[in-house]
Amino acid sequence: MDPYQRRQHSYDNAMSDSVSVSTYSGRLRRAQELCSRRGLAGLVLGPGEQLAYLTGLRFDTHERFSALVVPAVGEIRLVLPVVDRDVTPEERLEIKVETWVDGSSPYDLVPTGRIGVGAELVASHVLRLMPGRELVSATEVLAELFVSKEKLELEELRRAGKAIDRVHAQVPQLLRPGRTERKVAADLSRLILEEHEKVDFVIVGSGPNGANPHHEFSDRILGLGDMVVVDIGGSLQSGYHSDCTRTYVVGGPGAVPRMYRVLYDAQAAAVRTVRPGVTAESVDAAAREVISAAGFGEFFIHRTGHGIGLSLHEEPFIVAGNTMELLPGMAFSVEPGIYIPGKCGARIEDIVAVTEDGCELMNNRPRELL
Amino acid sequence: MDPYQRRQHSYDNAMSDSVSVSTYSGRLRRAQELCSRRGLAGLVLGPGEQLAYLTGLRFDTHERFSALVVPAVGEIRLVLPVVDRDVTPEERLEIKVETWVDGSSPYDLVPTGRIGVGAELVASHVLRLMPGRELVSATEVLAELFVSKEKLELEELRRAGKAIDRVHAQVPQLLRPGRTERKVAADLSRLILEEHEKVDFVIVGSGPNGANPHHEFSDRILGLGDMVVVDIGGSLQSGYHSDCTRTYVVGGPGAVPRMYRVLYDAQAAAVRTVRPGVTAESVDAAAREVISAAGFGEFFIHRTGHGIGLSLHEEPFIVAGNTMELLPGMAFSVEPGIYIPGKCGARIEDIVAVTEDGCELMNNRPRELL
Repeated sequence: MDPYQRRQHSYDNAMSDSVSVSTYSGRLRRAQELCSRRGLAGLVLGPGEQLAYLTGLRFDTHERFSALVVPAVGEIRLVLPVVDRDVTPEERLEIKVETWVDGSSPYDLVPTGRIGVGAELVASHVLRLMPGRELVSATEVLAELFVSKEKLELEELRRAGKAIDRVHAQVPQLLRPGRTERKVAADLSRLILEEHEKVDFVIVGSGPNGANPHHEFSDRILGLGDMVVVDIGGSLQSGYHSDCTRTYVVGGPGAVPRMYRVLYDAQAAAVRTVRPGVTAESVDAAAREVISAAGFGEFFIHRTGHGIGLSLHEEPFIVAGNTMELLPGMAFSVEPGIYIPGKCGARIEDIVAVTEDGCELMNNRPRELL
Repeated sequence: MDPYQRRQHSYDNAMSDSVSVSTYSGRLRRAQELCSRRGLAGLVLGPGEQLAYLTGLRFDTHERFSALVVPAVGEIRLVLPVVDRDVTPEERLEIKVETWVDGSSPYDLVPTGRIGVGAELVASHVLRLMPGRELVSATEVLAELFVSKEKLELEELRRAGKAIDRVHAQVPQLLRPGRTERKVAADLSRLILEEHEKVDFVIVGSGPNGANPHHEFSDRILGLGDMVVVDIGGSLQSGYHSDCTRTYVVGGPGAVPRMYRVLYDAQAAAVRTVRPGVTAESVDAAAREVISAAGFGEFFIHRTGHGIGLSLHEEPFIVAGNTMELLPGMAFSVEPGIYIPGKCGARIEDIVAVTEDGCELMNNRPRELL
């Protein structure tokens, strides 16, 4: 009835089961310290992953203003329209709830001065916050907190990885000649929901559609021998995401095309590179070198990966120019792809977590063409 | 693989079939005229409904910057990361595509001066646009264009209404004792996808969960005699939405509770009020008066409705304080609800379109308890 159309998450208002109250209060205190250290009067975060990371609170946003206000010093407040009064922070977090009714201006409840704004707040609210405030990004502050995952977060990413692996295990029987991408996508949505709290996205790119990395699904009918990129993900009740891609051939592969063997080697090379101290861009380079050396460089048109946690896309971005050094606990996707316009495409994606001496693979389905 | 987690729409990059090129070019010209008249240097719109309304272009956004730039005078441009190069505006719209690669700053491609920012652009981009620009809301400008629907838009809303009616027709057989809200929601997602391009949201609020207007679904098991609020919506390939709520009783209703009879009368009274010249707030008042007179006023905690089109929520908002006069072609929801905390809730929602002398109902399933 009232979820803003850009917010399709289904979250209860309970604290995440996977993280304790002390963890959240610790994160909130550290956020306040970082504000002081960086000369910010505070942070204002709309509903979404950043707010959930600090409080465990998950709720839909909409055109009405709701936000967590974290001042550098003083009381942390949750500003809510009265229709969202059911959103109740854990008492022990000592977050003061301020509800407002249609007609009043909730923006006065945000401190003035230099304020860090959460990435997820939409323009309609950001514009109303501008008067009397110097708005800067809150993400630089928060990234310091969330970029290295805690034990319990890694456990959630492990669970999510196993969940999506179980879905991929059922993909081959869905890819029958004569079925449409849309029908397969509908089946996949149901299977993802059986393993997750939420469907995040479903990509079924068959034949030439596989050559568009942003294709989701269409009415194209699967033909025998079509290559099909299946990139699927969902989120657990805790909000942690799965995100895994495999490439299939309808009716099973005949001779494996050279481009796929190159992609397979590139993805493996990138994964092998992952360990503490290595830069994010060098993981991207490892995949890119293999693909370029084989003459497919022009067909690998996106970065190699993105961090993953409560956000599906966050730091560290595995992209040229990102000199961030990998640390134990960082989790991100390794997903090179080769896209041959008008013909076909292929992508292999696993989520990895940096360990003391290398990385842990969160996805473990076979990477061969199936 | 790369849809920003907040953008789960599945759209092809084709123009909407329902609207002709001349319609889009007309909307673009009018947007430019309105900029000049209001002293704006131009508009910058992120991917989403506002951009789709002006161009017919639908694509996912993500952390990379993509936007339609509509200057008051001069060439209209579409700024895209190279990974989105498949997004191709209709040639006859004469929109110049400017792609950018990671590392460069796409924000320089937006004119300086007084700029209207689309509601859907997220903070991470808005903040980078601030230097050298006075940012204001683009929505006031655009609302003048989209608030009264064109013939073809009304036809799409009619189709969407029929589609969701067909899904509601199947709800009774899904609501069997012993099933969970989640299982019902999974079935509904599949049924919505069979009738629509996309699932927008699924709310299954049984028993006490029905008392929370923002509840989506849970593992609660349906019991015989439970009241269940089912609020579902999807979008067609053209991007136009359905949004319809009915309240059911598991195993069928016994004696209809008084609160439901009051709600039924309130929703009918509000619908009867709708005609040109009436204010939006008076439609809200019509529903509220019936509910308050019966002593349930404190349990009706949200506005009566919201406009609907390419956006699920847009002007006219049917809420106290909105003195906007209804015009033929305006389309919005009429959805009063009564929510008794800890016990149960009920809501009846139809989409209506204002006609010359009253309104047309886009949803026509029985409104009685089923």
